[in-house]
Amino acid sequence: MFASRQIKHCRACGAAVEYRIPADDNRPRAQCTVCATIHYENPINVVGTVPVWGEQVLLCRRAIEPRYGWWTLPAGFLELGETIAAGALRETDEEAGARIELQELLTVLDVVAAGQLHLFFRARMLDTTLAPGSESLEARLFYEHEVPWEQVAFRTVRQTLRHFFACRQAGVFTQYCGAVA
Amino acid sequence: MFASRQIKHCRACGAAVEYRIPADDNRPRAQCTVCATIHYENPINVVGTVPVWGEQVLLCRRAIEPRYGWWTLPAGFLELGETIAAGALRETDEEAGARIELQELLTVLDVVAAGQLHLFFRARMLDTTLAPGSESLEARLFYEHEVPWEQVAFRTVRQTLRHFFACRQAGVFTQYCGAVA
Repeated sequence: MFASRQIKHCRACGAAVEYRIPADDNRPRAQCTVCATIHYENPINVVGTVPVWGEQVLLCRRAIEPRYGWWTLPAGFLELGETIAAGALRETDEEAGARIELQELLTVLDVVAAGQLHLFFRARMLDTTLAPGSESLEARLFYEHEVPWEQVAFRTVRQTLRHFFACRQAGVFTQYCGAVA
Repeated sequence: MFASRQIKHCRACGAAVEYRIPADDNRPRAQCTVCATIHYENPINVVGTVPVWGEQVLLCRRAIEPRYGWWTLPAGFLELGETIAAGALRETDEEAGARIELQELLTVLDVVAAGQLHLFFRARMLDTTLAPGSESLEARLFYEHEVPWEQVAFRTVRQTLRHFFACRQAGVFTQYCGAVA
């Protein structure tokens, strides 16, 4: 489940917190028993891309857990100080070493159980130079019939790939926004 | 600026943290000097709606700081355990008491300086019954020429409203995704 109820101490003063519903609120929050600071917990964002070269898409094979050895699209946590576009570009560079131009935001997927929102852009690869980073065992291009569906690391990646191929088949790229299937 | 560098104590054990770059990372993180837990800080999401009734849009006048007394679209922080659609519906209910049906995701706006991503859905109001909650002084419908632009609380709200009216004028609703202007 999501990272709720894991706050034990106040990040401002270090004292113990208790989960209680503040006076002007309607759900339990971690509140410091000494300085009364309230610590909110909210979903965080994962941003990534579907890098495309002609008829092929780029996937990376994970060199880290979870899903070590499985295939994924370049993606990772959005950092403070960056836009979702900048984050998606950074992750694509870090995990695949790919040079891309971002296109539209293709999927916006709620992953409620993980406390995450996943956002994937379609992207045009500028060349086929790849330089997988430390989080990837390898990066390579796949035609649709080659995609190792049974070894795709995450549901949001599978859903984004399926949506991409369906849009390409239909000849028009629409956005899918909703819960992960 | 965004809420970085505000962690002083470890939420797991209460000991002091230090900002340092972990071995497998490339940016400073708050790390506990005792139990070594790393505390990541990431942007959070604000979700809201543009509720539409015929030619009019619904705005709420804020009963809280910041921007007390200024006008805004119904919006608020996405909570753990909910989808962005559920969050947008909840905020519209809490702030305006409006019954709506969500349509497409109209804007996705980076607010980098605040460490936030703002997401607004277009929405169809099901009736004109309104019941502003404790965070709103009032809620009412505005024709485009009536919108109090100089009293609109936030840039993302202003930009979302302008995008909505431009799309309506053009006869097609597209998504704007990018940095807040």
